[in-house]
Amino acid sequence: MKALEEKILKEGQVRPGHILKVDSFLNHQMDIEFINEIGKEFLRLFGDRPITKILTVEASGIGIACITAQYFKVPVVFAKKAQSLNLDGSLYTTKVQSYTHNRVYDVILSKKFLTADDHVLVIDDFLANGCAVNGLLDIIDEAGATLEGVGIVIEKGFQDGGRELRARGVDLKSLAIIKSMTDHSIEFEKQEEEPYEI
Amino acid sequence: MKALEEKILKEGQVRPGHILKVDSFLNHQMDIEFINEIGKEFLRLFGDRPITKILTVEASGIGIACITAQYFKVPVVFAKKAQSLNLDGSLYTTKVQSYTHNRVYDVILSKKFLTADDHVLVIDDFLANGCAVNGLLDIIDEAGATLEGVGIVIEKGFQDGGRELRARGVDLKSLAIIKSMTDHSIEFEKQEEEPYEI
Repeated sequence: MKALEEKILKEGQVRPGHILKVDSFLNHQMDIEFINEIGKEFLRLFGDRPITKILTVEASGIGIACITAQYFKVPVVFAKKAQSLNLDGSLYTTKVQSYTHNRVYDVILSKKFLTADDHVLVIDDFLANGCAVNGLLDIIDEAGATLEGVGIVIEKGFQDGGRELRARGVDLKSLAIIKSMTDHSIEFEKQEEEPYEI
Repeated sequence: MKALEEKILKEGQVRPGHILKVDSFLNHQMDIEFINEIGKEFLRLFGDRPITKILTVEASGIGIACITAQYFKVPVVFAKKAQSLNLDGSLYTTKVQSYTHNRVYDVILSKKFLTADDHVLVIDDFLANGCAVNGLLDIIDEAGATLEGVGIVIEKGFQDGGRELRARGVDLKSLAIIKSMTDHSIEFEKQEEEPYEI
């Protein structure tokens, strides 16, 4: 997605440890008009699937998932980190390692909100080593639901998450894939792109 | 908001400890079409203010804030719980006690995204003892920004948060205020309401 690559080049900042900060528009401050463009692009990429639910994990995926869900006209379900007192005992659970926070989270989802009848689009802001997405795929498996695809805003193509998911046959589409980055430059993988048509 | 009260009565479940579960539409599964109605209602209530930013705190406020922000045509900024490795050192910080999680969080917000020029609408899903909102108001104070109002989806009117905020002169509007609840019934405070007009 050309507009996203341009936005990353303009506003993104590279920090030590291969961390890309895009907190001016994606995951701290959120440019809602731009995130609507992201939602439309996910619709262009996955709109032909019989999607019944969009699944993400708190926290930074939630806003993107909600805006995107408007185009698919389906509910969002977000998996929660750690035990919450007001969730049922009837939970799907998995573990997710956070790259940026350098710790392991328990991730939970109420069984009421994902069943074998569901066709699921997974949405998240970043894909690096793939731990968050793999945790969500575990939950989809456990529910017996059908994974229709994974839509990522920014993939770090130099880490293994994307390659491994594609090798498993997951229909993963990332709106921008970073091939390499240094303090002074960010290079993207070339991607085919067609204009969104109403 | 009549439609919200009806939705709470239909889908809400009361749990021991005065916990109201509305996770079928608000804060685990999210009914995006309905949350758009919530966004429109916040616009009706606060649309005459010169709002430049919507502020919330992760996680369950984010989706509601993002949908609402579309009607105000402003960015969302969400405060983050705990230290994140990819945030600047230049942060507003405060502490928030979570009622449902029974613990204290450090809450942080990058100084880049809230300044003395901002006119802020605070949005959150629940108001009970008011700790989360008070934390956000501390941050707004620290930034020297102007608080234009606080919009809450569900206020627990039998706890002190709302009363204390109104006593301080905060323009707090809650779309549903629960007067009392038992295992078998939920009673709401009467509220004036006008239909939303385009």
